Amino acid sequence: MRGQDEALSAVVRHLGPTFSLPEGAEVLTDFGHYASVLRIAEGIGLAICTDGVGSKTIVASRMARYDTIGFDCVAMNVNDLICVGATPIAMVDYLGVHTLDPERVDAILGGLGAAAKEAGIAIPGGELAQLPEVIGSDGRSHGDETAFDLVGTSVGVVAPDAINVGAKIQEGDAIVGLHSSGMHSNGFTLARRVLLSEGGLTLKDSPGGLDRSLGDELLEPTTIYVQAVKGLWRAGIDTRGLAHITGDGLLNLCRLEAKVGYDIEALPVAPSIFGLIQERGGIEDAEMFRVFNMGIGFVIIVPDNQVDDVLRIASEHGHSASRIGTVSDERGIVRLRERHLAGSLESGAFS
Amino acid sequence: MRGQDEALSAVVRHLGPTFSLPEGAEVLTDFGHYASVLRIAEGIGLAICTDGVGSKTIVASRMARYDTIGFDCVAMNVNDLICVGATPIAMVDYLGVHTLDPERVDAILGGLGAAAKEAGIAIPGGELAQLPEVIGSDGRSHGDETAFDLVGTSVGVVAPDAINVGAKIQEGDAIVGLHSSGMHSNGFTLARRVLLSEGGLTLKDSPGGLDRSLGDELLEPTTIYVQAVKGLWRAGIDTRGLAHITGDGLLNLCRLEAKVGYDIEALPVAPSIFGLIQERGGIEDAEMFRVFNMGIGFVIIVPDNQVDDVLRIASEHGHSASRIGTVSDERGIVRLRERHLAGSLESGAFS
Repeated sequence: MRGQDEALSAVVRHLGPTFSLPEGAEVLTDFGHYASVLRIAEGIGLAICTDGVGSKTIVASRMARYDTIGFDCVAMNVNDLICVGATPIAMVDYLGVHTLDPERVDAILGGLGAAAKEAGIAIPGGELAQLPEVIGSDGRSHGDETAFDLVGTSVGVVAPDAINVGAKIQEGDAIVGLHSSGMHSNGFTLARRVLLSEGGLTLKDSPGGLDRSLGDELLEPTTIYVQAVKGLWRAGIDTRGLAHITGDGLLNLCRLEAKVGYDIEALPVAPSIFGLIQERGGIEDAEMFRVFNMGIGFVIIVPDNQVDDVLRIASEHGHSASRIGTVSDERGIVRLRERHLAGSLESGAFS
Repeated sequence: MRGQDEALSAVVRHLGPTFSLPEGAEVLTDFGHYASVLRIAEGIGLAICTDGVGSKTIVASRMARYDTIGFDCVAMNVNDLICVGATPIAMVDYLGVHTLDPERVDAILGGLGAAAKEAGIAIPGGELAQLPEVIGSDGRSHGDETAFDLVGTSVGVVAPDAINVGAKIQEGDAIVGLHSSGMHSNGFTLARRVLLSEGGLTLKDSPGGLDRSLGDELLEPTTIYVQAVKGLWRAGIDTRGLAHITGDGLLNLCRLEAKVGYDIEALPVAPSIFGLIQERGGIEDAEMFRVFNMGIGFVIIVPDNQVDDVLRIASEHGHSASRIGTVSDERGIVRLRERHLAGSLESGAFS
């Protein structure tokens, strides 16, 4: 999209010059990775990333259910942080609300706290801002009292020589997918349009294929993959590439800095919400795989002979996982064999 | 306010239990300080804080002037970070927009980049989210295309034994105020109500006392005090207490963890915007000093015999500064001698 390209150009032009720091600190990564790493002392890198839950908050508001969205906020952050090889330590949250409703805030913070426990991080601070003319309002009418925005910034530590941007990935390595719990925290604009405004469903409906309401299905929290990945590290698994699969789907693999391609040969059956969206919206496979995780929430690339260990450790941490493909020599290309599709990050699409 | 008290209670209840971390990390500060500090390695504390620019974005949107608000975002963060004795290293930003307008984003990022240079920090990453149904919209009407929210999270380093929460402050110490440039980034709800919706002014007006338009006056960027405070540290000044003066005004002094009070004896003439607000709104001194910085953007508490050095170093860094008072034995009380007012953080008000 034009606006996004220009925005990225502005980021590089205006913020790139801030990379040369006084005080001996140094930015060790470039823009576009899952997280940035700064060297803050000899042998100590500080990883930092920030992400929000996007328009998933709208579903929470419409369902008046606020206890799950905190998991999404933590997950979106810590899952990014581990991709560079960092151990997450803490997150701070930003909760912007139209109206300060104590019960709603309590439920959101309850989710954040529980998710932080699961991820093994502290939430030592945060910001709660009441902005009734910006959040959920055009500044003229009263607006939507239930509207809110939720964003996190998480930090972790990684030794500078252990920063993992995928540079060690080799042709022939195995691609293991950790399965997703559903939509996670992206693609909500398309999903809501297809299912609700155009599809005629309501969040209370339980259309065929779902065993609960559409609203509860959409609110299923994003899976937190931190403990499993830390388990792999403890076991000495050579995690050559780590990729959190969010917007852009499996094209996220191309963010890894390896001169290889990714042959996806065997995807698991995707959660039924994706079939519902595809069917109701008449959406082609190419678009589905560009927007959604389609059942794979996190990818781990390891030497072929470590796949069984990865699957066992993932299972011990409660994750379904499967080998989904093999690293190829088609540089920059993600190929979905079963769907006869291929895509790259430059094109931003499968075709 | 009831909602805020309950929200704070929810923060402590839900997030307090996250403070005990695996991996040997440890949260070294309690809630309520300007920044949180985590011990991430032997002898290394990571300070982190998050803050946004609040409803100042509305003035930027109405003025269609977006090059200054980035300074506010950086300032609100780094000025908090130095209060605990930390050297700011980096910030990540969250820019939530209704509509992705490349020129607007370019101007905002330009301000962020220039402010980061001034503060001596990197901005190695950030998040740009387009949320047309949450930001500037109630989700039903099209909403305000120019609406945006801007939040930062900044990190810095401080040796654990150098964390400064004001514990060394003693009765008789001098209170030095670094002057503010104007409104900084708080009090905009009251100011806009008094001046615009009730006061009948427009942002283009230049009412008596202002030498530029009201909009430009309101958009005057928050002063960044980092280089001056780092200058004090380099000179060996014993900065026993550091307080960024934002919402709650000089009551912020009570956040310092010292069993003392603060006698404010001689305030400088406040920027004329405050006189305009007070006059138009018929607002009492007590309310003005509770909501606004009233001319003092940052407070430094030092031994009496170091005041001249502080004033000199502040001046070398381009700041007007003056001795505004003396530390007293009235525990928890901020007394404004000239106005015959006193207040505490518990009461949250002057009277």
